[in-house]
Amino acid sequence: MVGEKKRQKKAEKSLMTFGAEVIKDISEVRPPRLKVPSRSTSNIFYDEKNRYFVLGNKYGIRSAANIKQVKKIAQTICVADFCKELIETNKFATLREMYYTAEGWDSGPFSDQGESDVVLEDLEAMFGVKREDLGLVPEEDGAAVYGELVVKEDNAVIDATKAGRGGYTIPPTIDDVELLKCKAKRVIAIETMGMYHRFVQERAWKTFDALVVGLKGQAARATRRFLKRVHDEFGMPVYLFADGDPFGFHIGMVIISGSAKLAYINHELAVPDAKYIGVTASDIINYKLPTDKLRELDIARLKQLQKDPRYNTEFWQGEIKRMLELGKKAEQQAFAKYGLPYVVKEYLPAKLKEAEGKEFIGLK
Amino acid sequence: MVGEKKRQKKAEKSLMTFGAEVIKDISEVRPPRLKVPSRSTSNIFYDEKNRYFVLGNKYGIRSAANIKQVKKIAQTICVADFCKELIETNKFATLREMYYTAEGWDSGPFSDQGESDVVLEDLEAMFGVKREDLGLVPEEDGAAVYGELVVKEDNAVIDATKAGRGGYTIPPTIDDVELLKCKAKRVIAIETMGMYHRFVQERAWKTFDALVVGLKGQAARATRRFLKRVHDEFGMPVYLFADGDPFGFHIGMVIISGSAKLAYINHELAVPDAKYIGVTASDIINYKLPTDKLRELDIARLKQLQKDPRYNTEFWQGEIKRMLELGKKAEQQAFAKYGLPYVVKEYLPAKLKEAEGKEFIGLK
Repeated sequence: MVGEKKRQKKAEKSLMTFGAEVIKDISEVRPPRLKVPSRSTSNIFYDEKNRYFVLGNKYGIRSAANIKQVKKIAQTICVADFCKELIETNKFATLREMYYTAEGWDSGPFSDQGESDVVLEDLEAMFGVKREDLGLVPEEDGAAVYGELVVKEDNAVIDATKAGRGGYTIPPTIDDVELLKCKAKRVIAIETMGMYHRFVQERAWKTFDALVVGLKGQAARATRRFLKRVHDEFGMPVYLFADGDPFGFHIGMVIISGSAKLAYINHELAVPDAKYIGVTASDIINYKLPTDKLRELDIARLKQLQKDPRYNTEFWQGEIKRMLELGKKAEQQAFAKYGLPYVVKEYLPAKLKEAEGKEFIGLK
Repeated sequence: MVGEKKRQKKAEKSLMTFGAEVIKDISEVRPPRLKVPSRSTSNIFYDEKNRYFVLGNKYGIRSAANIKQVKKIAQTICVADFCKELIETNKFATLREMYYTAEGWDSGPFSDQGESDVVLEDLEAMFGVKREDLGLVPEEDGAAVYGELVVKEDNAVIDATKAGRGGYTIPPTIDDVELLKCKAKRVIAIETMGMYHRFVQERAWKTFDALVVGLKGQAARATRRFLKRVHDEFGMPVYLFADGDPFGFHIGMVIISGSAKLAYINHELAVPDAKYIGVTASDIINYKLPTDKLRELDIARLKQLQKDPRYNTEFWQGEIKRMLELGKKAEQQAFAKYGLPYVVKEYLPAKLKEAEGKEFIGLK
């Protein structure tokens, strides 16, 4: 039984326990009550030990005796029932599909998707499981992966060096995928697809024994889960290579320490050992990169990051301060100033040497 | 020699002829002149016969004798040189990388990427070739493809049923890919990845002998090129399934008839025989779909489409009018109201029967 099946069993059991309690309440003529962990900011804490955001102990009680809460409880029961059916039939639905499916439910339709999403988040927080374990998936695919990784989806075995230049696409149902074999020794996750294709074209995946992951901007849930799984299951270091600006920094940081919004599920997504290798403010100086001036928005964002507990390290405080002093930012493709292969032949070996303390020789 | 190699040879020849002319001019002490087809709106026409936008015959002369044009001519020569090197070394660069590479050119750097993009468009229009044939690719990947298609990239043979649920990703360098074999009989291109995954999960690709293409919104250049190629090379009908709103309509139309902006290259991208199967305003009525009210923006856009020559058919004029009368729009995932498989088991067979005049039986 692969991971996902176990997860879905756990989720199904939680759903059935929940259903049994509701039925017991009703048969004993007691209004059903739901105990839902609070996801408000006052209940979100940065966990210094684990190095990501977690939920505190506060929770709310929702009671069917309260006329204002009856509809929401009915909807929660319907969502739970829908999830149970998805798990039993081994299917997945998008959040959007669930919203539309609800048009035919006894609880009545949701007035917008925001409402149905919140009910699902309640269930995730109540059971401590991910929505994907409940059969619900986001719309978007995850990142592109290129390199010596072999995975299994249902009965199909997929080699990530043989899925084309576009790479193996991490599906929204990544926990359903078995990671069979990985000859790579490290993971390099890259913000832009332009740089991803540069790494593939220059065969960086081969030279550096790396899985090259093209994030397409902010990492999707499935991508974060994938990075956590390859890190945990293969013990591989994860490196993050993004644009040298506050948004690039944060693309890295959300992979490292998770987001506050997903505090209830960060233990499944965060990769606190992942390392941001650049572009840093120091790189801008050391490599004399072409830059753009920081906009007002960049400056405001950098000042926010300075106060964010996730950035409370010497490295980040130093780099943020340096960028504010410089007043400049640089994109990862800016290395093209020195020719297309430079980033792979010069920059990357230097960064990996810094991180792993060994020479990557014979690469030039 | 596959298509791309031929294309690149053609592009390389054009570049070399261009270079030779510049050298001849200089050695004969004549200021080099460039004849660049005009891409202004006054030179863009809808070609009724071919059913897409084309450029007219107007062009501009750029002369190195004109002090205002010297820098641009120098930059054009540098871009041409950069492209020639890309072709000779069998490499690709992104437009962004070219912009940064120019930091080291004798012509001096571009002041922003808009400038370098325009110079590249000049070359495309001058030579009648695509930027991809010149070695320059957009950042973004194309669509996801699932179904019985086998392609070859360099030496890797890729089966689009074995690249994972996420499908085979159309790379920006799609013309470099050989389409080896296709058992599918039709193509269904889908706006949202939610619906793409529904089609994959319900095995619609198998039931309907179809390549299922997940567009991820507005189709990328590589996707449009792919759709044109499978249509031309395998003679397959192409169906477009998008949201029932003006933006969904236009996602379909840009695949069908190309955009005005790319008039100089639509003959390589447009698929005039592709057919929009829905969601239509009629579908909203016939299937009693859950709807949203048209926003001001939707109404304004629909009124624009009414006057657009590409929509000058009975079908489109009728559907646009109907939607304006209804005052409503619907998403493709709205069919989930009738259960998740409904769209594949009921809607699609009805639409394909309408299009191809035959029953898709035994599908329920």
